[in-house]
Amino acid sequence: MDATYSALCKHGYADLSIQKIADEFDKGKSLIYYHFDDKEDLMLTFMDYMAEYIEQRNSELENVPADERLDEFLNMALGMQEDSQWEFQKALLEMRAQAPYNESFAEKFREIDDMILDNMADIVQQLGVQRPEEVSDILVSSIEGAMNRKVALDDREGLNNLKNSIKEIARVHIVEEND
Amino acid sequence: MDATYSALCKHGYADLSIQKIADEFDKGKSLIYYHFDDKEDLMLTFMDYMAEYIEQRNSELENVPADERLDEFLNMALGMQEDSQWEFQKALLEMRAQAPYNESFAEKFREIDDMILDNMADIVQQLGVQRPEEVSDILVSSIEGAMNRKVALDDREGLNNLKNSIKEIARVHIVEEND
Repeated sequence: MDATYSALCKHGYADLSIQKIADEFDKGKSLIYYHFDDKEDLMLTFMDYMAEYIEQRNSELENVPADERLDEFLNMALGMQEDSQWEFQKALLEMRAQAPYNESFAEKFREIDDMILDNMADIVQQLGVQRPEEVSDILVSSIEGAMNRKVALDDREGLNNLKNSIKEIARVHIVEEND
Repeated sequence: MDATYSALCKHGYADLSIQKIADEFDKGKSLIYYHFDDKEDLMLTFMDYMAEYIEQRNSELENVPADERLDEFLNMALGMQEDSQWEFQKALLEMRAQAPYNESFAEKFREIDDMILDNMADIVQQLGVQRPEEVSDILVSSIEGAMNRKVALDDREGLNNLKNSIKEIARVHIVEEND
């Protein structure tokens, strides 16, 4: 799965091939074909791996105070310190754009989206928000919009600026509803 | 350009070909090849046409009260009454996802993004917001995130629910800063 991550960062999704993944993988192409029927099959497994990573990260932070969890989440989603993370987001945007035409992709993304949404709802509920599902939905949309928009326009600085605005949306909902 | 719009709604972007556009166009394929070198060339002209449409719409609404303009903008962006609009958004998501790998696409999307951003900044400034560029940036991101996320997951009802949350973000910024 590390080889798939590296190949996605290097080539994006549309231009990806099993050969290009094998080039990143020292155990060779035949082993990959042994396990996966084709590129799509491999991608679905890769998305399971992403889902597991997110789930693990969420459960690690379960006992951390909610405001720290919110910060951690925003930093993870919008931090973008490393070049490879930025390249990976470009490939991910391509994959999401295929979801409406590929039901298996759509299903995996729905699963990941639900996981992120539930985690965010849990955070804002702990922060005292009354309608956690609704606030979670708009926060996750804003985060994803900030990411997609700035990734499409290749504007890393712009994304960093938006991080504070999104924190503010969260803060406003929390403050407003607690008043 | 109407033929391009119809073909995009029907086939999406990745599967689109000049042939498929010609099928929607009663004047035939040879005329399309006479004007455009290839699919990409045609798409760039189509994006100019989108930009012109947005510019025209913005200037039509210039003298309308700002709160009505905001409503109009949100309805236009998130209304999604017709099936064809929804299909078109899927194709548009695919095209945006290609922007990081195609500088000509990125340039057109940057131009369209700037236009939308300026218009929104103008609206919120008229509504009395102090930092219109910043608030415009987060509003446009939230709108685009809501759209992209729900389009990728094919959840039209979910998009409709988010419309009210986005109105609330706008309202909160306006109320907060005017207090």
